[in-house]
Amino acid sequence: MKKYIEIYNHFKELIQSKQLKSGEKIPSVRKAADIFSVSKTTIQNAYFELQADGYIISSEKSGYFVCDNINLKTQDNNIVINKKDIKYDLKSGDADKECFDIALWQRYIKSALRQQERLLSYGDVQGEADLRETLCQYIAQKRNVSASPDRIVIGAGVNSLLGILCSLIKGRKTVSFPDKSFINGISLFNDYGFEVGIKNKNADIIYVSPSHMTSFGSVMPIKRRIELLNHIKTTSSIIIEDDFDSDFVYQSKPAPALYALSGGKNVVYMGSFSNVLVPGIRISFMVLTEELAAEFHKNKERFAQTASKTEQIALCGYIRDGHIYSQTRKIRRRYTEKTKIFYNELKKEIPSAQLSISENGINIRLIIDFEKDISVFEDNQISVYIRSYENGVLKLILIPSAIPKEEIKNAIFALKNALL
Amino acid sequence: MKKYIEIYNHFKELIQSKQLKSGEKIPSVRKAADIFSVSKTTIQNAYFELQADGYIISSEKSGYFVCDNINLKTQDNNIVINKKDIKYDLKSGDADKECFDIALWQRYIKSALRQQERLLSYGDVQGEADLRETLCQYIAQKRNVSASPDRIVIGAGVNSLLGILCSLIKGRKTVSFPDKSFINGISLFNDYGFEVGIKNKNADIIYVSPSHMTSFGSVMPIKRRIELLNHIKTTSSIIIEDDFDSDFVYQSKPAPALYALSGGKNVVYMGSFSNVLVPGIRISFMVLTEELAAEFHKNKERFAQTASKTEQIALCGYIRDGHIYSQTRKIRRRYTEKTKIFYNELKKEIPSAQLSISENGINIRLIIDFEKDISVFEDNQISVYIRSYENGVLKLILIPSAIPKEEIKNAIFALKNALL
Repeated sequence: MKKYIEIYNHFKELIQSKQLKSGEKIPSVRKAADIFSVSKTTIQNAYFELQADGYIISSEKSGYFVCDNINLKTQDNNIVINKKDIKYDLKSGDADKECFDIALWQRYIKSALRQQERLLSYGDVQGEADLRETLCQYIAQKRNVSASPDRIVIGAGVNSLLGILCSLIKGRKTVSFPDKSFINGISLFNDYGFEVGIKNKNADIIYVSPSHMTSFGSVMPIKRRIELLNHIKTTSSIIIEDDFDSDFVYQSKPAPALYALSGGKNVVYMGSFSNVLVPGIRISFMVLTEELAAEFHKNKERFAQTASKTEQIALCGYIRDGHIYSQTRKIRRRYTEKTKIFYNELKKEIPSAQLSISENGINIRLIIDFEKDISVFEDNQISVYIRSYENGVLKLILIPSAIPKEEIKNAIFALKNALL
Repeated sequence: MKKYIEIYNHFKELIQSKQLKSGEKIPSVRKAADIFSVSKTTIQNAYFELQADGYIISSEKSGYFVCDNINLKTQDNNIVINKKDIKYDLKSGDADKECFDIALWQRYIKSALRQQERLLSYGDVQGEADLRETLCQYIAQKRNVSASPDRIVIGAGVNSLLGILCSLIKGRKTVSFPDKSFINGISLFNDYGFEVGIKNKNADIIYVSPSHMTSFGSVMPIKRRIELLNHIKTTSSIIIEDDFDSDFVYQSKPAPALYALSGGKNVVYMGSFSNVLVPGIRISFMVLTEELAAEFHKNKERFAQTASKTEQIALCGYIRDGHIYSQTRKIRRRYTEKTKIFYNELKKEIPSAQLSISENGINIRLIIDFEKDISVFEDNQISVYIRSYENGVLKLILIPSAIPKEEIKNAIFALKNALL
């Protein structure tokens, strides 16, 4: 045993057995070095460890003392979050608990947990191979996005994937977003040193979310899609297409993916499962262009997988067995139906408000004359997304997805109370 | 229904019912505009969708044709990975399957899945509150790292946390790593625009991994720890302490954490569970300094959680019930024991090799005169980490953790075959 550990143990025992009492001074480094016939460094090391383990404290000038509460350092709980109870969540877009068959998902998780061998090894940086294959078939069938599994990268949420993408395209300088509400993406690109603009047609990277162009969920018209693709044909720009909410676009059929329209040239396609499965499951994927995929494979060792392996295995089976299609249909039906009911009730109860349903069918925009403080929402136990509040006019975006049907009337009552 | 969708449907039906046959030309945009009495743009939009959905293709000059294989686009499976079977994995540090009680972990996952309400909402960006509280107690007890749950951030792997950290400390310019083997961290800091150096004492950010300073697993001596802390006292540098492998340091007690020694001033502490649980479970955490925690809370909306919610809930229970301690002890005992056996066998079988066990007790360094091509390892179904191969001298790092005990002799035989 090293000398300093012997000395450490010596003092530890004295303190634990209360032979050295709380507040008592212990010998100075010099004195202890004499007593134990060791160097001052050895004593210093022992004292540092005693300090680190909470047995003694040092007082700048006067030496070392036994601590008051051994092993019971008080934690600095100084940041207290005071959150009032929100009863009606019209902001988060959380899932409707009746929509999701959690027992079914549990079955897939359990079956994934039985694959012990797979869980005992590190996952593929790119994502589990069987899930990538299944995703290929899924997006080819659903969105006509055609690519080999080697071009797919899986990650926990679009943000982790954007981090990898930023690294792959760092030769480029400027990036454009459709709207300031893409806070996550904008700050990520900022952090990576890109110059971020809003609706900058000449940017090297054009980030779009065609089924959710703004916080209000407007959809990019087909004309604009074609213009955009023609534009990048004549430049060297690339498009990042975040296909968020495309499942909810309730026209006769969803607008085609830019990736499909372009045949995959210069378009990176991103998709996610949080909004059709449950928000707690964070698995997203991106389809890289051929060039970026080659770049990724060359630099694979620099990246790490973030998505849970168990959930990747479970999702693979869930999609393969076709549950994702019925789940998507069910959620779309429910959410659009609920939004319509909410809209009609609002119209009746708050006739002074201007109301409209977003193109993707799940958000409601509300515009109203308003003079109160915005704390009235919290006071009425409601959370809402405030799009703007200027000159006595308030614009809200309401997402009723998380409100149970039987609570719609109460939620509207609370909202009316806050607004009028 | 929009006009262009009507036209889309018209052609789709003709193609599906084989009234328009594969290879057949369809009317030009101008002609179709005449036929349907609509604008050319409307036809263009319909044709774009038909193309996107794989019904027709356009040929630059000669017009539009019905596709050969409708809805059966061939996937470009051109990248084929040719990986030979590795039987003896001495490189990855994957887990020993006998070490982990997967049935126990399954129980915690199942119980997490029963918390439906929690799974149906988006997770806390910072990580689940109960897990953060449990982690506080765990690291206080185990490593004397004392901080409130508000200073803890959870993420899927150290890399995602470093991404957040890079964003929080982007005012700083230079960062130092102990060794070039920290590929993930080095390229991440590079991507964020930091100037990366190796062992640069004067860097603004000093990244260290005291229990795993190099790929060989050397441990930072207590003297150096104190020097480092004294150094940052006189500068405004901060230390990122990645406590990786501290569980395996097999002295009488592991060296104290820098965070504990400094009382948490200017040290960000990072910990991970992949190596004591199973590699497939990716949950890591960091303890921010007070200043960085305030910065994080101010900018919370910019970040996203990456760790699986289900696994966070499961891990919380697993730690709270004390299983993490017994699991750590078990793994440490097994791995160090196995490494010793492996070392002794190697000594007997390959006496010409210089051998040593790393300070953290789980790696073996092997130095040997060598003239062959390094493909001999793959030919013998072994994967190894090659630290260097110059002037006829080969240096390997061997990690026997994933080799079952009963396979040690065979693995060594294969290694002998490759080396001699």
